[in-house]
Amino acid sequence: MTEWTRKHLLGLADLSPEEILFILETAEGFKEVSKRSVKKVPALRGRVVMNLFFEVSTRTRISFELAGARLSADVLHFTGSSSSTKKGESLTDTARNIEAMGTDIFVVRHSAAGAPHQIARAVNACVVNAGDGAHEHPTQGLLDIFTIKNNRGSLEGMNVAIVGDISHSRVARSNIWGLKKLGAKVWVVGPPTLAPSSFEKLGVNVCHNLDDILPEIDCFNMLRIQLERQDTGLFPSLREYSRLFGLNGKRMKRVKRDCLVLHPGPINRGVELTPDVADGPQSVILNQVTNGLAIRMAVLYLISGAAKSGTAQAI
Amino acid sequence: MTEWTRKHLLGLADLSPEEILFILETAEGFKEVSKRSVKKVPALRGRVVMNLFFEVSTRTRISFELAGARLSADVLHFTGSSSSTKKGESLTDTARNIEAMGTDIFVVRHSAAGAPHQIARAVNACVVNAGDGAHEHPTQGLLDIFTIKNNRGSLEGMNVAIVGDISHSRVARSNIWGLKKLGAKVWVVGPPTLAPSSFEKLGVNVCHNLDDILPEIDCFNMLRIQLERQDTGLFPSLREYSRLFGLNGKRMKRVKRDCLVLHPGPINRGVELTPDVADGPQSVILNQVTNGLAIRMAVLYLISGAAKSGTAQAI
Amino acid sequence: MTEWTRKHLLGLADLSPEEILFILETAEGFKEVSKRSVKKVPALRGRVVMNLFFEVSTRTRISFELAGARLSADVLHFTGSSSSTKKGESLTDTARNIEAMGTDIFVVRHSAAGAPHQIARAVNACVVNAGDGAHEHPTQGLLDIFTIKNNRGSLEGMNVAIVGDISHSRVARSNIWGLKKLGAKVWVVGPPTLAPSSFEKLGVNVCHNLDDILPEIDCFNMLRIQLERQDTGLFPSLREYSRLFGLNGKRMKRVKRDCLVLHPGPINRGVELTPDVADGPQSVILNQVTNGLAIRMAVLYLISGAAKSGTAQAI
Repeated sequence: MTEWTRKHLLGLADLSPEEILFILETAEGFKEVSKRSVKKVPALRGRVVMNLFFEVSTRTRISFELAGARLSADVLHFTGSSSSTKKGESLTDTARNIEAMGTDIFVVRHSAAGAPHQIARAVNACVVNAGDGAHEHPTQGLLDIFTIKNNRGSLEGMNVAIVGDISHSRVARSNIWGLKKLGAKVWVVGPPTLAPSSFEKLGVNVCHNLDDILPEIDCFNMLRIQLERQDTGLFPSLREYSRLFGLNGKRMKRVKRDCLVLHPGPINRGVELTPDVADGPQSVILNQVTNGLAIRMAVLYLISGAAKSGTAQAI
Repeated sequence: MTEWTRKHLLGLADLSPEEILFILETAEGFKEVSKRSVKKVPALRGRVVMNLFFEVSTRTRISFELAGARLSADVLHFTGSSSSTKKGESLTDTARNIEAMGTDIFVVRHSAAGAPHQIARAVNACVVNAGDGAHEHPTQGLLDIFTIKNNRGSLEGMNVAIVGDISHSRVARSNIWGLKKLGAKVWVVGPPTLAPSSFEKLGVNVCHNLDDILPEIDCFNMLRIQLERQDTGLFPSLREYSRLFGLNGKRMKRVKRDCLVLHPGPINRGVELTPDVADGPQSVILNQVTNGLAIRMAVLYLISGAAKSGTAQAI
Repeated sequence: MTEWTRKHLLGLADLSPEEILFILETAEGFKEVSKRSVKKVPALRGRVVMNLFFEVSTRTRISFELAGARLSADVLHFTGSSSSTKKGESLTDTARNIEAMGTDIFVVRHSAAGAPHQIARAVNACVVNAGDGAHEHPTQGLLDIFTIKNNRGSLEGMNVAIVGDISHSRVARSNIWGLKKLGAKVWVVGPPTLAPSSFEKLGVNVCHNLDDILPEIDCFNMLRIQLERQDTGLFPSLREYSRLFGLNGKRMKRVKRDCLVLHPGPINRGVELTPDVADGPQSVILNQVTNGLAIRMAVLYLISGAAKSGTAQAI
């Protein structure tokens, strides 16, 4: 593959293995920019990146804002809470209006699965999905995969366990799609209410007992527990959850010496991970954050280039 | 007219026809910038534009932010909700303080008519009125007029109908002033509670029955209905309003073939306009948004030039 | 002193007189930048300044934002209200995450004394304290001292009165440390509940009767009364406060002709100062605001230079 042709990044389910690897290679180049004294390239000078966030997310928003700034774009924010949508405007009208002001790339977060796709159909601008409901969060999936690949060279044949509330997680879904395309073997781990056996249809192994698979796993991706879900009945108590599915010093004695521990953040210390694991030698959690910037630079750069070349694929 | 001499834009009532046309010509030049690959000019590099918004307005704020960015200014935001005004500081003190930090241009939105004028008297910086109470919203008036002129060549002799809640609308007032100065004939249309006959004093025709004038009108400017005004007694039900004053397919059969439909946004689809009209061939609603950017670039550029030349008029 | 070696500015208590004077000299150079037509220098191009504010402060935030913009840095905002901290993340984890995205300088405001110090220990980036609890607000102290020095040449032997709620004021503490280091004689003035005699331990004079010292004082720094503290019992009524500790025309007849009146803003007109004093010839309140920008440019510039040189002191 020598040229990127998509003007949207809506999910990893759509991408070919070659496309995923192409993004990772591009991100590798951008990691170098972040080490320069002047951490900027002029690639998107004069272009407008609009963060269109209908769900609050400081971390993802700032990561995209910095990615845009390093590419010399103008990055603006439109948040649902202060928006015209409160006044009854449709999502499509809002997007078309913001496009008419000169937006080149939309970065969309929405609680409804499919909202970025709806916008991609409505506008000529590029669209990046920054998380839609429980559907996909492709740049998070990419940065997780990038982090594993950077540490282990290849995903081929790796055993990756995604642990936690799989059912409600867009991070889990984007990881599953991307990891499998690159040849990894994926396990989803949690109580049956959160990691139901129906996930086997996606070609992953479903496991309800973390201890059963500890010695086999190369990478643990420990999903954040949404504390507000505790009273839903789907969920054990935090203490019970941590006892059954948390990584702690005792469990780390049974894992492979070179295994990796990932977490999309923010961490609930003492729940998904004990502090010694979060800060321990196997943790690559802060690398994930740094890699996220490079991945987002790569995605903004590639889709805007495809849009400009006029050879872009439709949605 | 060869030189702009005002350092504030507070309302269209103050401007001469020549001044209005001068802004439109300048905006025409800036429309071209938005088509470049690098959509920037260095005109305001190192200057500070401060959005001083005491009323929430995502759309207008973003339009000014983009206008400033394309002129290479630094654009900052000061919003009433997080401001010192909560702590009891006077409007004048707030403005003088922000000016002392180095602000060159204030863009002011306030629920009180006259607030931008008060600031203009208190500071040496330039002031743009971005909407004050029910008084004026001059850049909206200019972008509406710019859109009509771009489509029809001239305003002279055009019949323009402004439909909706005229009484409470700063958009209506700025349109009336500007349209009349350029030679258009203006109609205000709505129920007597919203379009009272007292508007005749401004030299416009007041009409309570949209159907009476449909075939005569060249441009319809369909004001947004403020849904929160429904319970005031001034207002028919939404259904009744739409039946009497909304544009729909049936009414569009009776209008001039080349008439234009404008709306300041955000649209209540099915109230002021049916979707087929909003998205139909006569609609120039998204052009208005695009033109708004060029108008705001022109205004920021002209007033800051006048301020620098030292020949600026006082308020 | 010829070189700056600290990569954090956490408080004036830590600095030597030479270091304080070095910052003031650097700020003097940056004042000139604000008078240029293009008010920018490329010193921090490509660097990321993160405003990490866990307390609302429009004024200080904007001043740092402008300071960063004039140095050509990318300035981003992370506010406590929309942050991961709500989700239970620790302060240290939040800071490390934001650093991992590429932050070079943190500007921290927090209601807890010591929060910026905690962050400085957790990250490799630079940290500026923008106000921590009742502890320090060093850039405010510096801009106050800079303003006095600019008007009077030297602080040596000056009598400076800080008037108001000394107990709860980080501005008072930073002023006390800085003023004394530069040879001024400091008075703290207020009712015993707000200016307790325990402050004598810091080497200042405690005074409960403003009228007693009026003729001796060279500079009055009139602290803002926090209106929300009125019901605490520590506090007289506003009217009583103003009568006893406010500066008004009558008191100004008894002061030195060349005395200065400072206020950190926002002013409660009629409480700490009557309007004729706030706007009178002795007032340097707006100069303070302008000087604040130069001070913050100097601080961002110096600490980032020290960080780069690799010779920076540890915290």
